[in-house]
Amino acid sequence: MRSKEDYLKSLNDGRRVMYRGKYISNIVEHPVLKISALHASKLFEYPDRSYDDQQYGKISKYFKVPKTSQDLLDRHKLVYDTTIFCNGIFNISQAIGSDALFSLMITAKKLDKKYGKDYFSRVKKYYEYVVKNDLTLATAQTDVKGDRSKRPSKQPDPDLYVRVVDVRNDGIVVRGAKAHTTQAAVADEIIVIPTRAMGEEDKDYAIAFAVPANTPGLKMIVRPIDEIEGNSSSVLSVKDYELETLTIFDNVFVPWDRVFLFREYEFAGTLARLFATYHRFTAISYRAAMANLYLGSAILSAEANGISNEKHVRDDIIDIILYKEILRMSAIASSVYPEIDEEIAIPNYIFTNIGKLYTNTHFHEVVKDLIDIAGGIISTLPSEEDLKSDEGEVISKYLRGAIDGKERIDILKFVKEIDGSSSLVGYWLTTMIHAEGSIEASKIELFRNYDFNESKELVKKIISS
Amino acid sequence: MRSKEDYLKSLNDGRRVMYRGKYISNIVEHPVLKISALHASKLFEYPDRSYDDQQYGKISKYFKVPKTSQDLLDRHKLVYDTTIFCNGIFNISQAIGSDALFSLMITAKKLDKKYGKDYFSRVKKYYEYVVKNDLTLATAQTDVKGDRSKRPSKQPDPDLYVRVVDVRNDGIVVRGAKAHTTQAAVADEIIVIPTRAMGEEDKDYAIAFAVPANTPGLKMIVRPIDEIEGNSSSVLSVKDYELETLTIFDNVFVPWDRVFLFREYEFAGTLARLFATYHRFTAISYRAAMANLYLGSAILSAEANGISNEKHVRDDIIDIILYKEILRMSAIASSVYPEIDEEIAIPNYIFTNIGKLYTNTHFHEVVKDLIDIAGGIISTLPSEEDLKSDEGEVISKYLRGAIDGKERIDILKFVKEIDGSSSLVGYWLTTMIHAEGSIEASKIELFRNYDFNESKELVKKIISS
Amino acid sequence: MRSKEDYLKSLNDGRRVMYRGKYISNIVEHPVLKISALHASKLFEYPDRSYDDQQYGKISKYFKVPKTSQDLLDRHKLVYDTTIFCNGIFNISQAIGSDALFSLMITAKKLDKKYGKDYFSRVKKYYEYVVKNDLTLATAQTDVKGDRSKRPSKQPDPDLYVRVVDVRNDGIVVRGAKAHTTQAAVADEIIVIPTRAMGEEDKDYAIAFAVPANTPGLKMIVRPIDEIEGNSSSVLSVKDYELETLTIFDNVFVPWDRVFLFREYEFAGTLARLFATYHRFTAISYRAAMANLYLGSAILSAEANGISNEKHVRDDIIDIILYKEILRMSAIASSVYPEIDEEIAIPNYIFTNIGKLYTNTHFHEVVKDLIDIAGGIISTLPSEEDLKSDEGEVISKYLRGAIDGKERIDILKFVKEIDGSSSLVGYWLTTMIHAEGSIEASKIELFRNYDFNESKELVKKIISS
Amino acid sequence: MRSKEDYLKSLNDGRRVMYRGKYISNIVEHPVLKISALHASKLFEYPDRSYDDQQYGKISKYFKVPKTSQDLLDRHKLVYDTTIFCNGIFNISQAIGSDALFSLMITAKKLDKKYGKDYFSRVKKYYEYVVKNDLTLATAQTDVKGDRSKRPSKQPDPDLYVRVVDVRNDGIVVRGAKAHTTQAAVADEIIVIPTRAMGEEDKDYAIAFAVPANTPGLKMIVRPIDEIEGNSSSVLSVKDYELETLTIFDNVFVPWDRVFLFREYEFAGTLARLFATYHRFTAISYRAAMANLYLGSAILSAEANGISNEKHVRDDIIDIILYKEILRMSAIASSVYPEIDEEIAIPNYIFTNIGKLYTNTHFHEVVKDLIDIAGGIISTLPSEEDLKSDEGEVISKYLRGAIDGKERIDILKFVKEIDGSSSLVGYWLTTMIHAEGSIEASKIELFRNYDFNESKELVKKIISS
Repeated sequence: MRSKEDYLKSLNDGRRVMYRGKYISNIVEHPVLKISALHASKLFEYPDRSYDDQQYGKISKYFKVPKTSQDLLDRHKLVYDTTIFCNGIFNISQAIGSDALFSLMITAKKLDKKYGKDYFSRVKKYYEYVVKNDLTLATAQTDVKGDRSKRPSKQPDPDLYVRVVDVRNDGIVVRGAKAHTTQAAVADEIIVIPTRAMGEEDKDYAIAFAVPANTPGLKMIVRPIDEIEGNSSSVLSVKDYELETLTIFDNVFVPWDRVFLFREYEFAGTLARLFATYHRFTAISYRAAMANLYLGSAILSAEANGISNEKHVRDDIIDIILYKEILRMSAIASSVYPEIDEEIAIPNYIFTNIGKLYTNTHFHEVVKDLIDIAGGIISTLPSEEDLKSDEGEVISKYLRGAIDGKERIDILKFVKEIDGSSSLVGYWLTTMIHAEGSIEASKIELFRNYDFNESKELVKKIISS
Repeated sequence: MRSKEDYLKSLNDGRRVMYRGKYISNIVEHPVLKISALHASKLFEYPDRSYDDQQYGKISKYFKVPKTSQDLLDRHKLVYDTTIFCNGIFNISQAIGSDALFSLMITAKKLDKKYGKDYFSRVKKYYEYVVKNDLTLATAQTDVKGDRSKRPSKQPDPDLYVRVVDVRNDGIVVRGAKAHTTQAAVADEIIVIPTRAMGEEDKDYAIAFAVPANTPGLKMIVRPIDEIEGNSSSVLSVKDYELETLTIFDNVFVPWDRVFLFREYEFAGTLARLFATYHRFTAISYRAAMANLYLGSAILSAEANGISNEKHVRDDIIDIILYKEILRMSAIASSVYPEIDEEIAIPNYIFTNIGKLYTNTHFHEVVKDLIDIAGGIISTLPSEEDLKSDEGEVISKYLRGAIDGKERIDILKFVKEIDGSSSLVGYWLTTMIHAEGSIEASKIELFRNYDFNESKELVKKIISS
Repeated sequence: MRSKEDYLKSLNDGRRVMYRGKYISNIVEHPVLKISALHASKLFEYPDRSYDDQQYGKISKYFKVPKTSQDLLDRHKLVYDTTIFCNGIFNISQAIGSDALFSLMITAKKLDKKYGKDYFSRVKKYYEYVVKNDLTLATAQTDVKGDRSKRPSKQPDPDLYVRVVDVRNDGIVVRGAKAHTTQAAVADEIIVIPTRAMGEEDKDYAIAFAVPANTPGLKMIVRPIDEIEGNSSSVLSVKDYELETLTIFDNVFVPWDRVFLFREYEFAGTLARLFATYHRFTAISYRAAMANLYLGSAILSAEANGISNEKHVRDDIIDIILYKEILRMSAIASSVYPEIDEEIAIPNYIFTNIGKLYTNTHFHEVVKDLIDIAGGIISTLPSEEDLKSDEGEVISKYLRGAIDGKERIDILKFVKEIDGSSSLVGYWLTTMIHAEGSIEASKIELFRNYDFNESKELVKKIISS
Repeated sequence: MRSKEDYLKSLNDGRRVMYRGKYISNIVEHPVLKISALHASKLFEYPDRSYDDQQYGKISKYFKVPKTSQDLLDRHKLVYDTTIFCNGIFNISQAIGSDALFSLMITAKKLDKKYGKDYFSRVKKYYEYVVKNDLTLATAQTDVKGDRSKRPSKQPDPDLYVRVVDVRNDGIVVRGAKAHTTQAAVADEIIVIPTRAMGEEDKDYAIAFAVPANTPGLKMIVRPIDEIEGNSSSVLSVKDYELETLTIFDNVFVPWDRVFLFREYEFAGTLARLFATYHRFTAISYRAAMANLYLGSAILSAEANGISNEKHVRDDIIDIILYKEILRMSAIASSVYPEIDEEIAIPNYIFTNIGKLYTNTHFHEVVKDLIDIAGGIISTLPSEEDLKSDEGEVISKYLRGAIDGKERIDILKFVKEIDGSSSLVGYWLTTMIHAEGSIEASKIELFRNYDFNESKELVKKIISS
């Protein structure tokens, strides 16, 4: 298995990464971007990351294909624990890629059955390559989408969803762009899958494939990391953060053995939905872990302010507990009652989407709860430079609470970052609502998959007897 | 009346303002801080800012002492309109000071009646000085407060609430610090009032007074303006923002004619509550205006994304309408049914606090509503530098929605600033909950002032007949 | 003006009223139905019910056509006060009819202008007849509606909206049924107006008219009054309640001078909307008054249980205060900023619908708040017969709280009725959501009438400068 | 094992049951009360109710002492399935009693360890008696409680919590009353346990015991069953309902071998909390099943009204799904991560209380959701007598929706009963908030049991590194 150093070295491979208007030659040497590479690399230091696979030997637990409830419970714990290991920040490096690989395996088997193709052997081969080389992967699903009221083929610009623009003997050429691909710039490989169900007229958009991050024609525009560059007292983001890229495919060539869906449009939705389900299961797992940042801060802030016994403070804390534990409950129930398809265990659609919907619609309450406890000072805290100036002592004097001023400031700086005047707050509010699918996406999924028969039959029995 | 230039010039008066660890010599020349001075100065350009007072001639409308419902309705409109004039950002320059002056007038009359003092004439004289010189004022109310479970005199450090430390023939000497004083660094005068009711043992903390911003011993530590320094695509904050300071009184001398409360501890609560009421009335007025930033953005984002007719988008928009209009409703009802005390009209306690409570507890919903509409891109938007780079054109190509990419980016940059990965979001979430009094403060005020008799009598009548 | 006795006598006029499967000969002699007649009759005892009209002399205040903000504020107070006078139960007798009359006046003027008709003189004549005879009126708006996804003319049965089935020289013949017409069985007159906007193909459904309650062919099926017949310890409903009828028009003849809209389909929506607005203004006024039943009960229950100082109890009470006062705020703001159309003042559409939406979506919270305070006993309270039995004393012994058992039981019986195991609770939950228009109806109205320009222009100005 | 008939016959045992002021001689012959006896008796008809116990042979599954996660998952399913079997109405007959027995077993072992007593053998003997005779049990926990701000021994009347009033050689004599004991009047045995933790001064109140339902001195006052007597169109309650009694202990003698706690006050809280946990686990299980009444009704009502595709209808339905499935999730997670104490599996405190809190605080939303879909007609539906009258046909004509009128009426009658003007709605709203412990009770339990260390340590690690 790879070491942290192997991984970091491999990133210097000629990939095209732009940051703040400039192409970066070696990401590991960039003062800001290196943090997200170092964050990713922590996975290689996680002590409990491997298991002995019968077929492949010692490999990353992330690549264990789930077959049982226990496998899913283990995967939930793996995501949760590695998030805690990385200071409460999700480490997507092998999580999202394996979510995609499991989905591709199931879809490939169905494709092969229907069309007599060899998709499964392609996926299997790619999976083995990834597993054996212990690679990190990004998954690019969300297209830039243009006018949301129009299907891919009806957009004024045909490139607003990633599509096939040329078919060659040795493979295909694709063009388009995917929005906010997490950690793409620091991943070894990029897996691309459709963002939605497709109709026949959209079949050129019904494609799935994988490419190395340094493949020609691939450009990655990294979002500005304002949470560091705008907050000189940042505590967490200087240790751990994940970047997103606008991922542009400027006529990228993909050889056939890395093409996993090609114009079989009726499977685009299957694949999109399978991935969404796996990835939402991952999401509720990492978000439950991340909730500890708010829960721990709430307790420490309450103590620092001398308000631990106030009823409204306890109500706020209970609200955060509910957030964390309802996510965990949904992950557990999703594992205990999975759907088995093509011999692979899929987290229960209903429970997974309920957990997802709960995080979408309640994270902003968690933010409010902690603000209520921590106080206005988390947005008007003097700067790091002030604290280090000649006035630093007097500032500390006046910022004492039920504890010493310096200790309280340490807590406040952190709460400022995750819950006050820091760009992280808005960033997380956005991702908690939109990452891994929007609110409406989860509602539609819930409604579509729900079995209403038990309840309808019960009522019919009562009113007809 | 003063011109914008008069005002700006006056700020170069030797005041002690620290920013990021350094004392600033002339605030108007500082690249970041000058924005908040220029913002304040816009009040002097507001076309409809003066009226002809019978006694004082042409003066600022902000200083008109409210006597009637119409006066309060006019004041609501003045705050609302000047906020719109300043791009949706509150202009506190003469608002908070007049809120304090009206409260001091009422309290002074009561003090004089009870103790045969001359407080009202001191307040009147100060008021006339302010009015005639068309000054801007900050009001420092919130003490740093230390351990929230202990009264001022029971704190381990006696300076955690501002207090009298010396009494001289010509005045008093005060020490302590006030947290997050809005626009103190760009105000002409600082009015100081108590933050809470005081008991006899806290009488040294029962003080109110006013000092010029450049008074010796006064130090102002400005919070870091991360919303500009961390967001190179900032659109609004580079035009308008308000700063807060940690305002330190390091043995500041105050002459007697500027002392408005001195150890009459039983009036500390009266004054604190009166100010809170006036200022919450101001708050619901400016917040209703500010809500237009979210409402307008929601409409424009929905159009840009091609989702204006989606039901969930309409629900989000209705939620923002409710936020804005319930604030306006509360300001109107507060004006129509004021309390008249000492011949001055006070906004209705109940309606004002209900509006205040609604903004405290619903602003985070507004944030969520707009995120739901605008999409994840508001937190992963390429940087201003990217947009200006060679890849700028292709980025625009891929960021088109139902409208052209460049136009959509203009909207997205703004939505990022007020609702995405910008420190402004967390800053506003904090201030919407804590500025002008916390959630619990408004609840206590509501409960204390509510007349339960009508409802109790009705139920008693029914059950006894 | 009429006396209570005049009114009650007039109800014995041959009208066709069915209750529990039987036609009732004289409603005032029916043990259950007479309560709703006596309730209606209280209006004639309300001390402050008349004013001196310049044109018509001493008439009911309910018939004063609003021209100014003060008229609307007075009308709000009239509805509120008469509701309090009737033990918190709305008295619709002249309220809903005048709401309809004002709407008909405005619509008639517009119809006459467009078509050169004489509708306004018909309405005026009818208004004068009503006013001079001091009549009570029901307004039947909501059609039974059949399949909600189909327009009136597309229903499988053409009678599912009230329609013209014959046109004669002297008038028209109508058929159909209106759902839940409040107090129809105890009103002098029934006014009928359309429930929605109509297209040309629905023009036979675009009708408005008025008939006496005893007009041939009119049948009124009264809902079962389970709140009395199922709760032997009922305290309030045995004093005051309002009934609803399924109101069937079985080929009812209407003379021309009582026809106020006839196939001018493009005005059906105008009339429906105007009435909805007036009546929602009435609704927020009576509901604010009715909220006192919950607020008073909450206070008394908390005292009876010894939990007045519990924080969660105070939070519940504040929630009820918010419910009551946000309704009042919306009525006040609606009055202060009315729309004037055809010289008549219409309550502000936005504020009225916001108040309406708030009551729709928060009444169930009020119910929950009081349950939380009062305790499970409000649904398991021993029966009135138990309390009067030999075990009555020991039951009282065991039901004491912080007050004597008998006193507490008096409170609990009432809270059971309005908030526990009584059919009134479900009845009110339903009416608070559906009476005077559903949640969606208010949302649509809000969205349609809202002026988004101020907010859009503000944002456009910021992003373009 | 007993048959339905055995059980019903056994109820005619001389027990003292009062209904509407009269003592009932044989409950099974009473027209209203017999329904709750027949409901209870359905348990004996449930096809899958027994298992082969190694020690006791074929016994009721309800009495299987849980040792593992699977046992708890099975118990969850048993409660859920028997609730569905009984038309969505919980069948408490062996559920609540076994909840109490498991709690008594654990507590008894702890008592014996600490005091060298023989409590466990008493409990075991009683358990065997119950199991072998296949008995039904009620559990009386909630005391009438008097002034909630005072402890048991501080009440003005010493009998407001059940207490020992005499100690004899052969046993003890108890006095007091328990509120709302479910199904006591149709149970074979009554188990009594403390309602709260007790201090030393309250030790006479620290008692637990069991008595047969016909024990001398025991009086049961049944709440009035208004849901049947007040709603002639009742569909569900005429088939299934559960009664509650005010259960009075008028100097009841209890022999020593049925005394399970006697003045060991420090275990009163342990026992109360254990029972609460088991019973809340039962509660979330039956409530999830009962939620099908609302979910099925929502679907059928939406279809009947022709509004199945409306977005707001789908949002309502999703909300009901969330209610049902979050309860199921919490039961599943509680089972998968139990606490094992004295070799017995206790449902996870945190997950159980979260599920409990969710049902407390969201059931009223479910009620609102269904009202929103079903429409106002559920509270103004003509009576059963009307439907059977000569006008029945025309009423059906006018009540058609997207389906035939008679079919729609069948649905509406049911929805009226569970969600409209029926006393069941208020009854359920109350029980969903207060049965099995109030909202505050669950919050306190959550806060007390939560392990905050993981989150505190994570934050401390971040801010100190």
